[in-house]
Order: sequence, then C-alpha cells, then structure tokens
Amino acid sequence: LEHCKSICIIGTGRLAFRLSRQLASSALIINQVFGRDIEKANKLARLLGAQGIDDYQETKPDSDLYLILVSDDAIEEVSENLPMVKGLVAHSSGAISSSALKKHARTGVFYPLQSFTEGEEANWPEVPFCVHSDEEEDLKLLENTVRKISSRPYRVNDQQRLKLHTSAVFTNNFVNHILAIGRKCCEEAELPYEILAPLLNETIRRAQLLDPWESQTGPARRDDKISMNKHLEILAEHPHWQSIYREISASITKHYKS
Amino acid sequence: LEHCKSICIIGTGRLAFRLSRQLASSALIINQVFGRDIEKANKLARLLGAQGIDDYQETKPDSDLYLILVSDDAIEEVSENLPMVKGLVAHSSGAISSSALKKHARTGVFYPLQSFTEGEEANWPEVPFCVHSDEEEDLKLLENTVRKISSRPYRVNDQQRLKLHTSAVFTNNFVNHILAIGRKCCEEAELPYEILAPLLNETIRRAQLLDPWESQTGPARRDDKISMNKHLEILAEHPHWQSIYREISASITKHYKS
Repeated sequence: LEHCKSICIIGTGRLAFRLSRQLASSALIINQVFGRDIEKANKLARLLGAQGIDDYQETKPDSDLYLILVSDDAIEEVSENLPMVKGLVAHSSGAISSSALKKHARTGVFYPLQSFTEGEEANWPEVPFCVHSDEEEDLKLLENTVRKISSRPYRVNDQQRLKLHTSAVFTNNFVNHILAIGRKCCEEAELPYEILAPLLNETIRRAQLLDPWESQTGPARRDDKISMNKHLEILAEHPHWQSIYREISASITKHYKS
Repeated sequence: LEHCKSICIIGTGRLAFRLSRQLASSALIINQVFGRDIEKANKLARLLGAQGIDDYQETKPDSDLYLILVSDDAIEEVSENLPMVKGLVAHSSGAISSSALKKHARTGVFYPLQSFTEGEEANWPEVPFCVHSDEEEDLKLLENTVRKISSRPYRVNDQQRLKLHTSAVFTNNFVNHILAIGRKCCEEAELPYEILAPLLNETIRRAQLLDPWESQTGPARRDDKISMNKHLEILAEHPHWQSIYREISASITKHYKS
C-alpha cells in the first residue's frame, strides 16, 4: 500500500517532462498524462508509454499517485477540476500550501528543491525532495516514490517549505543576480571577467566550507563609509544597484555592530 | 632599472605579513619593515631577514620599491610622513586613488584582488594584481615584481580599479551575506543546511559556466507577486532582509521586463 505502482502526471511543462521521464526510467508506471494541449500531452505520453488526455473526465480513478506538475497559479484550479480520486493527489510547488488540494481526500507535496535549466539534465540522485502529507501512510508512499529516483527525501511541512523556498530564492536567484551585477561592473571597467575568477572561486569555496556569518569581510563589515560612498558614486548610473548596495551594506553593518 | 632589487615594507598587518613573506620567498630582498609598533615591525623583519624600524627618518632612501601595506584610511598619512625617496612608492588598496601618494615623485599601485582570511595561505600564483603608474618604466617595475609571485598582473588605472573594487564587493562580500541569510532562513525552518547544498553547488557551477544575466530564474524574473509577498511575510522578523529582498527583486523584475 505504501508503494506507488501507477502515476498520473498532470502538466506538460519543463518539470513534467523531466520528472516524469525520470520516474518512468526508474521502474514506475506512468499510466496517463493530462495536458490542456493534447498534442503536448500526447508527446510526453508517448515518451512514457502512457495515455495522453486533455479531458479531466478521462482521468483513471485508480492511479496510486496524481502528480500536479503545473505552475503555482494553476495548482488550485487543476485540483478543483480533477475528479475525486482514490489515490494521493500531490503538487510539486515550493510556495503553495497543501490546502490548495483540499477538494481531495488524500493530499501531499512532492517538491524537488532544484533549479532546472534548459537543455541540462538534473543530477537526480542528489536532488532533495521535500515531501509532506497529513497521513503517515501517504508520507511513506511519497518517500518511497522519491527513493526510486533520489537518495534525499526530507519530511518538510508547509511552513518549513515556504521558509526553505525563501532560502532557495536567496541562495540561488539572488546570488545569481548579485554575481550578474558584479560581472557587469567589471565589464563597465573594460576589464576581462577572468580577473574576478579567483575571487569568485574563493568566495564559493568558503561558502561551502565555512559559516558565511563568520567569514564576512569588506567595507560594510568594517563600517568603512568612505569606501562605501565611493562605490555608490561608481554605481550612479544604476539606481537599482545603488539601492541593493545600500540595503545589503546596512544589513551587514547592523549585524556585526550588534 | 625595471627590476626591483630591494623593497621597504610599510605596515605590519595581515596583508603586510603575507605579501612580504611571499615576496621574500621569491628571491626579492626586503631590506626594511616600518611599523608604528616596533615589536611587530621587528617580528616581521626577523622573518624576512630585514631591519625593523618605527621612525620614518630611519627609512633608507635607496630601496627600489616602498610598499605601503596599511589600511585605506592611513595611506595618505603614511605617504606624507615618509621622507622623499628615490624609489617607487606604491600602495595596495582597491579604493584609494594613487594621488594619495602625491608627495612622492614616483608613485604607483600594487593591488592584489583577493580576500585574505585568517590562517589560510593565499594561492599566490593565481592572485590577480592590479598595477598602475603614470610612468611606463615604473609600471614595468611593478609588473615584474608581480611576476615574481603571480602569473596575473593587470594594468588597471584608478577609475577602473575603483569599479573593479565595487565589483569585488558584490562578487565576494554581498554574495557571502546573501548566502548567510539563505542559511539562516533554512536554520529557522529547522532544516539541516545540507538540504540546500545541491542547489548551492548548482548555483555556483552555473555562475562559473554561464552568463548570470542569461541564467536568472525565480519569482522576481517571472514577476510572480504572489510568491514574493509570501516570502516577504516569512521574513517579517528581519526587516533588513525584507529590504534586501525587495530591492534585489525590483532590480531583477525591471531588468527582465525592459
């Protein structure tokens, strides 16, 4: 009962394509793929040896797991449109409460904590999956499903998951934007970005080894207003970057002063 | 003439200790170490086989290079106190103009673009050094001095250097603080930080391979206000982090909208 034998995939986007193929290649049976666009549903279904459907009424009621792999703003609507089923209905979002699935008797979350890019396969065995359900049996079913493709299932409730998602925005999206700004400043100085490579590598090496709260350096940590004002002047043509500079510096200065 | 035979080190802080020892171990002769604290000056001088001094009047006037390795706010004062010398006077700061050394006839900059931490030796051959001087001959002397310890000398003028320093603040200091916040959010969710390790590694791998302007993802890039508001709510107890979240998100949204 705690092992998942058949899965219905709902959605035909990037995550649906990648995750469902990985599940299928790990001895799980995908029996249906639902998509608003039947051509996309059929395309994915063919890859999985499944049936493509675009009508919710065609959903088989006896799959063990219904994975809703659609964008955050569509999850609740999809859940409402999905007929009542016996199986477990789960979504894969970091930010949506499991209550979005409340129409259904058995609900859960199956959230891969990874950022997926075009054209690159994820390193699935290392991808952490956050699973949640109110029922221990359903939680085990989700954990066992994760274990087919990854060694890293974590039990994470709704509140923890939203905090983790926030953390992931800082760790991935914001670090990326800050690096993008750093790179642009370097290019504006007409210097090759390679000049920053050793510093970037060192930053990264330390981030993986040390507690970043301990290893903070720089003008803001020293509350060196003269340097900070010079940098703000350099950023004069980029008011958004100035605001970022001010806010991060204020946060650093405040933390290390107190 | 363009080769440096003798160096006078001014300063006894972390950079002075590390850089001068590396220079000495690369067949350069350090003949004097000046420090306000004679004990520290003597301590470093002993390591280098040099003379420790704490009186500017004892400075030998015939060293080839006078390296001012003191904190930014002390550079100009040190330069003013240093007697007129025949050799080249250079500082090692990323943010201070070479005009701070204007008392002297021959001036330059010798700025290692690296963040030095307690207890760890720098990977000197890879450390980029930004050198600057108004005179070609002096520039060559600085480049040749760099080449004794590193394969990466770059000619970088004052304006470029300040932009590069700003870039380094984003690339190192700000990335570090953003990672620190991400880590804290994860801990506040009572989840082990290892859960974020694959995402962190992936972020970093991409930063080294791809243009971060191309690989940006996340709620701000999609202008997903619902998720962003949820994250801001999660950060309610950290108003500084909320401000950082708002400013970085605004910068991302604006860039990808326009």
